[in-house]
This record gives sequence, C-alpha cells and structure tokens, in this order.
Amino acid sequence: MDQRALEEIVAAALAEDIGPGDVTTEACVAPQLTMQAQIRAKEPGVAAGLAPARQAFRQLCPDVTFIAHVIDGSEVTAGDVIAEVKGQAGGLLTAERTALNFLQHLSGIATTTAKFVAAVEGTGAAIVDTRKTTPGLRILEKAAVRAGGGRNHRFALYDGVLIKDNHIGAVGGIAAAVQAARANAPHLLCVEVEVTTLEQLDEALAAGADVVMLDNMDLPTVREAVRRVGGKAVVEASGGITLDNVREIADAGVDLISVGAITHSAPALDISMESVSVGA
Amino acid sequence: MDQRALEEIVAAALAEDIGPGDVTTEACVAPQLTMQAQIRAKEPGVAAGLAPARQAFRQLCPDVTFIAHVIDGSEVTAGDVIAEVKGQAGGLLTAERTALNFLQHLSGIATTTAKFVAAVEGTGAAIVDTRKTTPGLRILEKAAVRAGGGRNHRFALYDGVLIKDNHIGAVGGIAAAVQAARANAPHLLCVEVEVTTLEQLDEALAAGADVVMLDNMDLPTVREAVRRVGGKAVVEASGGITLDNVREIADAGVDLISVGAITHSAPALDISMESVSVGA
Amino acid sequence: MDQRALEEIVAAALAEDIGPGDVTTEACVAPQLTMQAQIRAKEPGVAAGLAPARQAFRQLCPDVTFIAHVIDGSEVTAGDVIAEVKGQAGGLLTAERTALNFLQHLSGIATTTAKFVAAVEGTGAAIVDTRKTTPGLRILEKAAVRAGGGRNHRFALYDGVLIKDNHIGAVGGIAAAVQAARANAPHLLCVEVEVTTLEQLDEALAAGADVVMLDNMDLPTVREAVRRVGGKAVVEASGGITLDNVREIADAGVDLISVGAITHSAPALDISMESVSVGA
Amino acid sequence: MDQRALEEIVAAALAEDIGPGDVTTEACVAPQLTMQAQIRAKEPGVAAGLAPARQAFRQLCPDVTFIAHVIDGSEVTAGDVIAEVKGQAGGLLTAERTALNFLQHLSGIATTTAKFVAAVEGTGAAIVDTRKTTPGLRILEKAAVRAGGGRNHRFALYDGVLIKDNHIGAVGGIAAAVQAARANAPHLLCVEVEVTTLEQLDEALAAGADVVMLDNMDLPTVREAVRRVGGKAVVEASGGITLDNVREIADAGVDLISVGAITHSAPALDISMESVSVGA
Amino acid sequence: MDQRALEEIVAAALAEDIGPGDVTTEACVAPQLTMQAQIRAKEPGVAAGLAPARQAFRQLCPDVTFIAHVIDGSEVTAGDVIAEVKGQAGGLLTAERTALNFLQHLSGIATTTAKFVAAVEGTGAAIVDTRKTTPGLRILEKAAVRAGGGRNHRFALYDGVLIKDNHIGAVGGIAAAVQAARANAPHLLCVEVEVTTLEQLDEALAAGADVVMLDNMDLPTVREAVRRVGGKAVVEASGGITLDNVREIADAGVDLISVGAITHSAPALDISMESVSVGA
Amino acid sequence: MDQRALEEIVAAALAEDIGPGDVTTEACVAPQLTMQAQIRAKEPGVAAGLAPARQAFRQLCPDVTFIAHVIDGSEVTAGDVIAEVKGQAGGLLTAERTALNFLQHLSGIATTTAKFVAAVEGTGAAIVDTRKTTPGLRILEKAAVRAGGGRNHRFALYDGVLIKDNHIGAVGGIAAAVQAARANAPHLLCVEVEVTTLEQLDEALAAGADVVMLDNMDLPTVREAVRRVGGKAVVEASGGITLDNVREIADAGVDLISVGAITHSAPALDISMESVSVGA
Repeated sequence: MDQRALEEIVAAALAEDIGPGDVTTEACVAPQLTMQAQIRAKEPGVAAGLAPARQAFRQLCPDVTFIAHVIDGSEVTAGDVIAEVKGQAGGLLTAERTALNFLQHLSGIATTTAKFVAAVEGTGAAIVDTRKTTPGLRILEKAAVRAGGGRNHRFALYDGVLIKDNHIGAVGGIAAAVQAARANAPHLLCVEVEVTTLEQLDEALAAGADVVMLDNMDLPTVREAVRRVGGKAVVEASGGITLDNVREIADAGVDLISVGAITHSAPALDISMESVSVGA
Repeated sequence: MDQRALEEIVAAALAEDIGPGDVTTEACVAPQLTMQAQIRAKEPGVAAGLAPARQAFRQLCPDVTFIAHVIDGSEVTAGDVIAEVKGQAGGLLTAERTALNFLQHLSGIATTTAKFVAAVEGTGAAIVDTRKTTPGLRILEKAAVRAGGGRNHRFALYDGVLIKDNHIGAVGGIAAAVQAARANAPHLLCVEVEVTTLEQLDEALAAGADVVMLDNMDLPTVREAVRRVGGKAVVEASGGITLDNVREIADAGVDLISVGAITHSAPALDISMESVSVGA
Repeated sequence: MDQRALEEIVAAALAEDIGPGDVTTEACVAPQLTMQAQIRAKEPGVAAGLAPARQAFRQLCPDVTFIAHVIDGSEVTAGDVIAEVKGQAGGLLTAERTALNFLQHLSGIATTTAKFVAAVEGTGAAIVDTRKTTPGLRILEKAAVRAGGGRNHRFALYDGVLIKDNHIGAVGGIAAAVQAARANAPHLLCVEVEVTTLEQLDEALAAGADVVMLDNMDLPTVREAVRRVGGKAVVEASGGITLDNVREIADAGVDLISVGAITHSAPALDISMESVSVGA
Repeated sequence: MDQRALEEIVAAALAEDIGPGDVTTEACVAPQLTMQAQIRAKEPGVAAGLAPARQAFRQLCPDVTFIAHVIDGSEVTAGDVIAEVKGQAGGLLTAERTALNFLQHLSGIATTTAKFVAAVEGTGAAIVDTRKTTPGLRILEKAAVRAGGGRNHRFALYDGVLIKDNHIGAVGGIAAAVQAARANAPHLLCVEVEVTTLEQLDEALAAGADVVMLDNMDLPTVREAVRRVGGKAVVEASGGITLDNVREIADAGVDLISVGAITHSAPALDISMESVSVGA
Repeated sequence: MDQRALEEIVAAALAEDIGPGDVTTEACVAPQLTMQAQIRAKEPGVAAGLAPARQAFRQLCPDVTFIAHVIDGSEVTAGDVIAEVKGQAGGLLTAERTALNFLQHLSGIATTTAKFVAAVEGTGAAIVDTRKTTPGLRILEKAAVRAGGGRNHRFALYDGVLIKDNHIGAVGGIAAAVQAARANAPHLLCVEVEVTTLEQLDEALAAGADVVMLDNMDLPTVREAVRRVGGKAVVEASGGITLDNVREIADAGVDLISVGAITHSAPALDISMESVSVGA
Repeated sequence: MDQRALEEIVAAALAEDIGPGDVTTEACVAPQLTMQAQIRAKEPGVAAGLAPARQAFRQLCPDVTFIAHVIDGSEVTAGDVIAEVKGQAGGLLTAERTALNFLQHLSGIATTTAKFVAAVEGTGAAIVDTRKTTPGLRILEKAAVRAGGGRNHRFALYDGVLIKDNHIGAVGGIAAAVQAARANAPHLLCVEVEVTTLEQLDEALAAGADVVMLDNMDLPTVREAVRRVGGKAVVEASGGITLDNVREIADAGVDLISVGAITHSAPALDISMESVSVGA
C-alpha cells in the first residue's frame, strides 16, 4: 500500500496514545538504554499487520532494527516469534501498545478469514470481504483479508456499481436501475444487483447484470439461482454466512461468498512483546 | 465528547467510503427523492454510537431528521428501532454503511462490556477497559465501554503512570521505578505497578504504589494479594479474564478488573437500515 | 459532489490568495459597505463551476446572496449574466478572483468538451476524458466534462483496470496481463487493454478484454479494428484526437473517444465580475 | 521553492490518483521488477516542472534515480529527453501520470510565456503574470512563468496594493483610495492603481501612485498615457493582450505587460514517458 | 481577519487543552446546567483578542451568548467587564482557560504597544512591530499591535524586501543588493536596507533604497542620519528601543520606530472569568 | 518530546514566515553560497528551545551542521555561543528569525522559571507551571519550565482533576464535587481542590482531596493551612506569586507553588545570529 497513507495512519495512532508524552517511560527509562524484544504469537493464527507494526517502531525509534520472522499471511502457532525489535528502550516501550494493537487486530482478521477460506477449499468459491470495516482502517483490513486468503470486493462506493433494494425502490425497478447505471457510471465499472428472490434474479439477468448477489437465500434457492444464472453472470452469495454453513453454500456453485464477520467481528489474535535484554 | 473531534472522525470515515462519489446512488437515485428509513437492531444487545451515526447522516444531508429512539447504553432486543432517519434519499443511502459501521462496532463493544458488568454485579468490582483499542477510534470505544456500564482506565500513555515489567527491568527494580515516577511525573497522576508475584506485590506496596495490577495471577494468589494489600492500595486484576472466570475474580475482592476483549474482540451487533417510504 | 471536499478545495484556494489579508480591500473598503455585482460571460461557451464559485463567496461572506442565472452545462453567450452576488463589499471583492478562477477554468473545460461532443453528434460515439487533469482539481474538472456533455472515463488508478504497453512489457504479454488482472483485481472492475496494432487487438480480444483502447491508430486501421471487435468488446479510440478528425473517428464506429485536451489544454472562458451598486 | 510545500502538493496529487491502490499495476507488475524509462518532449517548447515530476517519482520509489537532462527554462524540441528515471517498475508506472501532468501543465505555461517574452524582445517591457492561476498551483505556475522568461506580479492579495475600479467606487475616488492605502497598508508595499481613462491616470499620478495599470486601453491611448506618466510611475499595460498586439504595446513604452492567458489558457506541452528496459 | 484561519487557530488551542476530555467538568457539572459569567480586567490596559475569545466559547457552546462590552483597542481599567458569556455551564468552564489565554496574551501586547505609542504622541513617528512574534500566532499578534495603536511592518518574508547585513555580505555590497532586489523581486515590493553606519546609509541612499533602517544607532547618529536622508527615503529606527528612549528617537525625526518587545516581551494582562449565576 | 509533533510545530512556524518565498534572500543570495554563523546570547539567562531551533534550520537546509554548545537548562551569559550553524547561506538566512523566535521565547521562560526556582532553593517547595500558556506552544513551554528547574503541573484538562470554585458552585459543594470526581474520573487521576478559605480547606480535607490548592491566601493563612493539612494532602500555593513573596510562601511549608507568570509574562531572552563567514 501507499507508504504515505501507512505513515499517516500509524502517526495518528501513535499521537492518540502518546499525546504530550509517555509519563511512565519518560520518568523511569534512561534515554541511553537499548532494548531487544520479541513479538510472539500466544495462540495459533495467521499473521497480518507487519507493515504498520514496523512503522510504529520506526516512527519513534528511527534507528530501530525490526526483523520480521514471518510475512503477512504466514500461519503462526503459539510461541512463534513474529518479529524481533532492537533499539532505544524508551521508544520501543512507548510504541509497543500501538504496534501490538495493529498486529492483533489485523492478524485477527486474517485468522478469521483463513478459517472461512479453509472451509471452502476445493470448491470454486472465493471468500470476499464487504464494506463492513472499521472506520479509518479499511485499507489495512482489506489487506488483512488478502493475507488470510480472501479476495476483496469493491473497496468503497466508487469502484463498482452495487444496486441494492433501496436503489431499486428509488429508481422504480431492477431494469431501470441497471439501465441508469450503464448510462451514467464510468464504463470500466461492472454492475452488480442484489436480489432476494428468484423473480428478482430473473429480472436482473434479463437486465444484463454482470454480477448478481443472492441475499440471504436458503440453500435450495441458492442452488436454483445458480442453475438459472447458468454462467451468464458472476454469482455472489451474501448474508447469514457462518463457518457452519459456508461449505454448503460454496458447494451450491456460487462464485463468491461475502462475509461481513471477517472484518467486523473477528476477535483479536493474542500477541505480546517481551523484552529479551536491556543494555546501555 | 468534543464535537469537532467527532466531526473529523466521521468525515474521515465518509471520505474513506465515498471518495470521488457513490457511483450507484448518483446513477440511480434522483436528487429530489426523499426517503424515510428505520435503523433496527437484529439481535439483542446494548446500543452505542448514536452520535457518530447521527453525524454521518448530517454531514451528507444537512436537513436530515434523525430521531433516536434509544440512547447510548439502552438495552435493545431484536427488532427494536434504534433511530429513524428522514431526508434526501441519495444522501441517506450514501451515508448508510458508514453510520451502521459505527453503530455496529460500538454497540458490539457496549454489549460485550455489559455482559462482563452483569457477571460481577453485586460484587464491589468494576469492569475497566485497556489501551487495546482500535487505532483511531479510542475515544469512541471508551465511550462505548461506559455505555455498557464499564469504567475507563487511563485514556493513554499520558494520564496515568503504569509501571510494567519492562519499565522495572529498565530502571532496576520496583522501588526505583516508583521513586522515579514520583520525582518526575506531574503530581496529579497516580502510580500503578503491575506485579506478577506476591513478592513483587510486597515491593510495590512498600514503595507506596497507589494502585497494583495483579497480572495473570491464579485465583488463590489473587485472594492472597487482596489480603496483603489490605486497603492500602487500589487492586486491579488483569490478564486472562473471561466471562467464565470474571465472577470469581471479583468475589476475591479486587476493586477493578480490566478486560482487553471488551474492545479488541467484541463482535459487531447486527443492525440494519430499512427504507420505510420513498417520495419526491 | 461531496460538500466537504468542495469546501476544502475552495478554502485552500482562498487561503492561497488571501494569506494574512487582502491589503487593498482592508485599507480602502469600509466594513459596513454592501455591494451588488454581476458575473458575466464575455464570450460564448458552456458554464461550469457554479458550485465552487458560490462556495468562494459564501466562505468570505456567510450572508451572501448568490443567485445563479444558469446551471453547469448551460450555454452562455457574450454578455450573459451567469450569477448575481450581493453582500458585504469587502468580502465580495476579496473572493472575486478565486471565484472567477474556478468559473473561467471549469467553463473553459466544459466549452471545449462541448465542441468535441457537438462534432460527434448523431454518431454512437461518446467523448470521454482522461487522467490528464490538473493536479488537485480532478473532481471538479471531471464534473466540468460532464457539464460539457462528455462522459467520464475511470476517475483514477483504482476504479478500472487499464493495461498499457508498459504493463504488458512487465508481465510478458497481453494474455498474461489480462489473466493477472482477472485473478487479482476486484470483480466489479472491467479490464481494458490498450493496443497499438491489429495483432495486439486480436490478442486482447482472445484474452477476453472487456474494453479495447485503440491507441493512435490511423483511420483505416480503426475501421478494421472495429470490424474485428464485432461487438465482443467496447471500443475506445485515443491519441491524436482533434476537432478536425474526431468526426471521422466516430464515424468509424468506435464507442468512446478519449481526449486529453479537453482537460489539459482547454483555454479559460472569459468571465468577469462587475459591480452594479455599492451601498452602506 | 519550499521543499515541504512541494512535497505536500505532489503528495496530494498522488493521493488523488492512487487512492486505495493502482489496481492494474498491483495485479500485473511483480514487485521486484525494475524499469528504466525516458521522459521526452513530443513537441517544441520550454521545460518547467522538473521539481514536482522528480518529487512524484521519489515519493513512490524512494530509491529512484531521476536524471534531469534539462532544467526549468530550457528550450526543448520534439524528441528531446527531458529526464531519465530508473527504479522499481511498479512505482514508476503508478507515478507516471502524475509526474507528466505536472510537467505538461507547467511546461505549457513556460512555453506560452516564452512566446510573449520573445515577442517583446529588445523593448524595455517585461511580461508579467496575474492572479488568474489554477487554484492550488499558483506557486508552481508562477515559477513556470519565470522559467519562460516572464516576471512575477504580486503573488496574492497580501503582497501589493492594487486598487481597482471596485475599490475606487467603494472608497469614493482614486485620491481617497491611494490615501487610505498609504495610511493603512504596511510601508513596504507599493500602491498600484488600475485606470481605464486618461482622466483616471491623471488622478492616479496626482495621488502619487507608484504604479499605474492601463486597463484595456487602445494603442494611441497607451502612448499618450506613457507620455503623461513621464517616468513618474511604473506603467503596466493589461487586458486584451495577445501575441498579435503585444509588440506594439511594448513599443509604446510601457514597463510591464501583464497577460492572464500565460497561466489560464496555456495549452499543455506534449510530453510522454517511454520504457527503455525492464528487468528483475 | 480570515474567519477560517481564526477558527483553526482556536480549534487547535482547544484541542491542546481538552484532548480526550475535561475530566473535572465531565465528572462534576451536569450537562443541563447553564451559567452566566463575566470576563473582567484585573488591571488597567488595552483590550485585544475578543475574536478568538468569542470563538473559543462558540466552538464548545454553539448556543453561547457572548456580549462584548469593549472592542479591540478599548482602554480598560481594573474591574471593567470585558465581556459577558452565557451558555451551557460545562462548555463555558472547559473553554474558559483557552479564551483567557488568548485575551491575556493579546491584551498584553496591545497594552505594551499603547505605552510606546503614547510615548511618541505628537511626534511624526509611528510605532511598528517586527517579525519577532510567537510562532503560530503572528496574525493575532499583529492585530493586537494595531489594537494598541501601532502599525504593522511587513507580515513576513514575502511582503517586503528587507536587506540586512548578512544579505549584504552575501551579495557583496549594498548597491549590488538593492540592484538584485529591483531586478528580481515583484514590482509592488519596496526595498528597505538596514544600515549600521552613516557610510552605509549613504550607500543605501545612493542605491535608491525606498526605506532605510537605522540599526542600533545612538541618538546623535540618528539625528545626522535623518538629516542626510532629507526626505529621500522613509526612515525607520530599530534596536535597543525602550520606553525610556523612544521619545528622543522619535523627536530625532524618524518616520517609524520598530520595537520587538511589544510582541516578544509583553507581559500578559491580568483578566479573569467569574461566574455570576448558575442554573438548570 | 515526540519528534513528529516538533516537526509540525516548526513547519507551521516556517510556513507562517516564508509563505510563497523569502523575496530578499531569493533576490540577493546565490544558491551555491554557504555560510557559517554563531547564535549568541546577548544577556544572561537559561537556554531552552535548542530542539525547535535545530529543527528550523534542518527543515530548510537538510545538510546543515548545527552544533549546540549548550543544552536546554544550561546557564548562559552575554556573549556565550549557544550554537553554531553551517550550511547553505540562503536557507540559514530564511530560517534565522524562526529559529531565534523559538530560542528567545523558550529561553525567556526558562530564565524566568530559574529565578523563581533559585528564590525557593533549600525550602521543600517546588515551582510548578499552570495552563496559562501560549496557545499552540504548551508542549514546548512546559519543557522550557523544566529546563529552568521547575516542575510541570497537569498538562491539560485531561490528566488531573482540579476542582475550582465554578465546579463547586455547579455541583453544590466540595464534598459532592470530590465524590463525583472519584466516581467518574479514571482511577489514576488524583483529585485537587482549589480553596480560598480555611473552611473550604477543612471541607476539602474531609472529602479526601489528594491535593489542595490555596488560592490567593495571605501568608498567615497559608501557614495555618499547612498546619491544618498536616501531611494529609499535598499543598499547592497559587495566585499573586512574585519573586518578592515566593520565598516566604515556600518557607510557610507548602509543597508546590504554581506561577502563571513564568509562561505568560516571561520576557524573551535576547539572542542573535551573526554570520562568521560566507563562501561558495
């Protein structure tokens, strides 16, 4: 990702935590002390967020040595060293929580994504994310989804047309909505239509939708929908997807399964930093 | 919270999602259309995030009517209307996802917090948060913790001295660390010491710590620690706290129980917006 | 467009011009004076930029009355009143140049675009813009293109895949590039391939490109290209397009004709502001 | 110019074009690839904008080698290499358009300015710019004017008093306006008065104007005005200046000729970047 | 001054003081309480800073009533009410310190300026400020100087040429420096030369300086300098000016006396806010 | 302090002074010239502000050599070299005033603080600052107080509870206010109560205040207050403290003496930069 955007996100996070100063470290830790520490996973999962973690240390300790032992997307198990840092002790201690907050949050997303990806392995279906991300962190969270083996849906409201029920209601029908999109949206954007019934699906196909999103359909309906599409459009399943039902949805033949929970409800991965040595 | 800070967080979230434009809405929804919609909980929980949600709609539709049916901290059940919005249809549709992202994330935190708070009800212990928050959203997440009945620990590195093992290692002992903090930190900040053994606890008490954090101690040790403190300091338990064990930790007599999971691992509360009517 | 983005662009423009103060107006114009003025076209063209012009006056004179006599996209002729403003004289005089700079620049783009659009009227071809815009003003310039009757190509690098010769060289061929794009880019983005020869065109079609861009082809080659595509892809012509040759390119049957000059070389439309009355 | 201001203008331009990512390059170009490319003029003109172009590449490829073959102000002819760049291929491709947009726009201004400067060569008149610049880019555009051999008028509203008809109307006459300016404006700012008639000129001279601007006067009137001034003030001609009439205006003996078109209507200079080699 | 710049300076000051929240007010003051308070001078002086004070209250209490009893430049004596505020009690208490910091600092500057202005009353000399201002507050401090009856020197490095000894050393002499300035600086900027000896003064006059700054000259030398200038340039005295010697410098016939101390060493004026009534 | 915050404060100060350019230096000083200069104290005092001064030069001259001869807190006497700078002459001249403004202002604060600290030497009392700082510069001014030997009070409204008369009035009494603070404020913040009478002091002690601030009490009352507190709380004296009376207040046995004048009324320390040599 853009280095400058990364720097700004991390700088804002550090500013949020440091404000006018880390009173504990400033009071207790002599400026000339150096420290070596290890960042370790405390439970199994998939690592993500190495870049913002490295950046957090670098912004406070320009001379820090940050040696990553894994990359985004690597599987880790409890006890694995994710990275080693060495540098000015005060800076490392002040940056620690911010670096870990990025690592834990993003590794949590990668880990949850990987579980869904594993569940559909061997089917033709891909796991994709949604726009249900944490405000301000979408670019990092979407990268964490990729680290977990998922694919990205549109990034935002501007890089894809996705016609939902409220749009359909506003414009007066699926056909009119698709036509309006073709007439007005830039020509490199595909048109996806969210449908909740087979009737709507037929309408969307007739209107020439590039992608259809089957919203909260039960399994038999999904199967029938896939049959009706017959390759004429990309098929995305969405809504109510869990680790328990994702495999059967995939087996029904859809191309994409979008899961909001991989970004909005992924528990953090437990990761900690431990000092290995302190010197002058 | 500060209105200007709120406006900036929400503006950044909207900019992240809208960029150069919402191609779907611009293509399909006539500018003069108005819409009335309801924001409803789809599962039980505790509401939080009303202010950023309202702000998201207001920034895109200056004339929006946003009527909250609940306040931050209200319990809601599946189907409850959290708020009604009425305004220019295009603006509401463009703001919808951002508003819901705030509501779902913050209500998730309030809901999880409330579960921990309920679990310790009647004991003298309070549930407090940590600095394990999502980068950029701490001020909102800490408010959501309060909405869920929890209390806030220090906001950041600047409003409290919290001496951890790495600080102790750097300065050469608990007594020296506490002394350094008293000498250097502003006089309105209390000094808390994290201890992992009863020996460290004794040292911290002897050094005059205002607060002691019992880190990852087992239950019998916690009980003995509370006995040794004997009211001479505030006692905080931390590490490995779950809904299964929080009650017995509280019953052991600690004053505060800090739980990182209420901010870093709270699943989103399911909330959606549904159009009630569209007009011109 | 997003009101907040508009406000920031205009605020930056005003700050650039005002800095610590408009020394002339502050010295010469009494604060209680009011002024009524007319903004008039001094040559024929198509108006655009009403929104930033209005915004410029509003930021300096919150109570200004700005009455637009035309809208973006209106044809104007020499002498036509584009808008009337009435408000505190000092504020109007300080904002005048900034407001006119937006109006003249954006109306210039709309006017030039309209000439190209008129030239292809009745053919099936649309005039589209490029990313050859003035740094910082793309969102306004793309709106001015629409005001002139043109359509927008992708806004930026993120809302469409456009494989150019340098990408092809880097990845090792058109087929490989299209395959990489399909595998990695979000599924709502179409894939366009720039081709300079008929052989490359055949490769792009075989690879399944959604859109082909015919780069700097002569007229007979464009005709043959359109024949070969035969409706299997959208056809865009690009490179060396002038008012002299755009019609014959359109007549060759292409769908889109992209013209960099409508944004990067459009002369400003001559527009001025004249005081009608000054009072206290 | 100020390095930090330059960095911010270029960073904003890159952000505008890249947003969350260059989907084409990310999909198609392996990160380890390097590229060497040449930036060439495709038509004759005067180069300008080397600094922002270099900065654009540097921000995306910190290790880029950017070798300028010319400097701002150099004359170039079709085919001339303006600069060579070598670095990580993906970064160069992503930065290409932004770098070229700066170069083309600013070289266009330098080229147009140079034509006016050449037209008055040997007379005592200098070509100066106006405040009719593109919002946000004034500092770069004024530098491009200098590159083309022109001189800069005041930068903005704060570094010179320029009394126009609207100010005169507001304060009640030229004498009063000049007096107000002398009384209120900082003592290092000269006072210029715009006059449209010889009567106004006489008033301005009597009031002690340092500079008089002859606005849209015909040639005989300009000659008479120069005669009346007789060295008692600097004389600037303005309004309706074209390449066709600029020489005779200069020959009339004015000191400065201000031309808005050199900034607001200069067509871009055609410049492109071509890959020379790609490697790993 | 520019409203937007004012808003940003005040917002930054409030953010500096409030950060994540005013813990005292939030804990102790019920949100529905209203308060009426008076801002009073506690010692005699000249008021300045009303605008940022009003703005500070307004940003925290949009519904505040702020009634100024004086304007910038008014003389006040101990006990005088400067302004009354009425609004939400919590907001007023949180804004109090920031509002007073602006008022005390800027009134201090106005008060000190007024003392110098009074000391030269009746001479032809004006008191002017310098660039020795507090970083970030120049625009407010220069306004406070005007409130105290002083005049402003150039605002910054861009709105006036001021050739000092270091410039002279770099370019090789006063004549060369003045010539370079005339050749390169915009034509609406005057050229001032700092001289420390009568020989340098003669050189500056011969070179055609518009303004000469007599730097740290003793009184007889100042008198001789004024005699030599004889009206051919504006004369500014600078360096070592105090209330004790300013009158005799003025009497020596200089036009301007610049005093750094009026901005960099003015003690704050004692001003406080007292609650008059609190209600619900 | 945080390097990034320092960079931004200095960048804003430079931007305020440079704007579109230093017209004098650009006109007169050849880019290839280098300069060596000394920054010297011109009167005795305590140095502070070395970091922002160094930063100012570094931002304009990335290759500058800045050799500090003293550190923050060093005593200097007239003529002492504070630092030597060597680098590109134009950059040094342009940065000079901004660097000196920081040095003079902050050294002034350190110098004034040191006088108060010296006055109480040998007593147990410490000199502490207040929130009466210059908007935008608090972090630097608080560091200057430490450089002068003072200690910092709370940084802002968020890192300490300080209950003043207005809060007491709003909540209905000292006991209620302290109780509200204990119940609502984070547990690492101490509670300080401002008292103006011995009755209020008794109430504050009874309510369990951690710190009491004796506001504007006369000396006998301060002595009695210290006696009543008897070590049960930290005692701070505040209000009306001058160099004349600070010693007797300290001798009365208070722990802390807060003095607003050390930040809001400290005269600048006279410091100048003189060129030692100029070369090519």
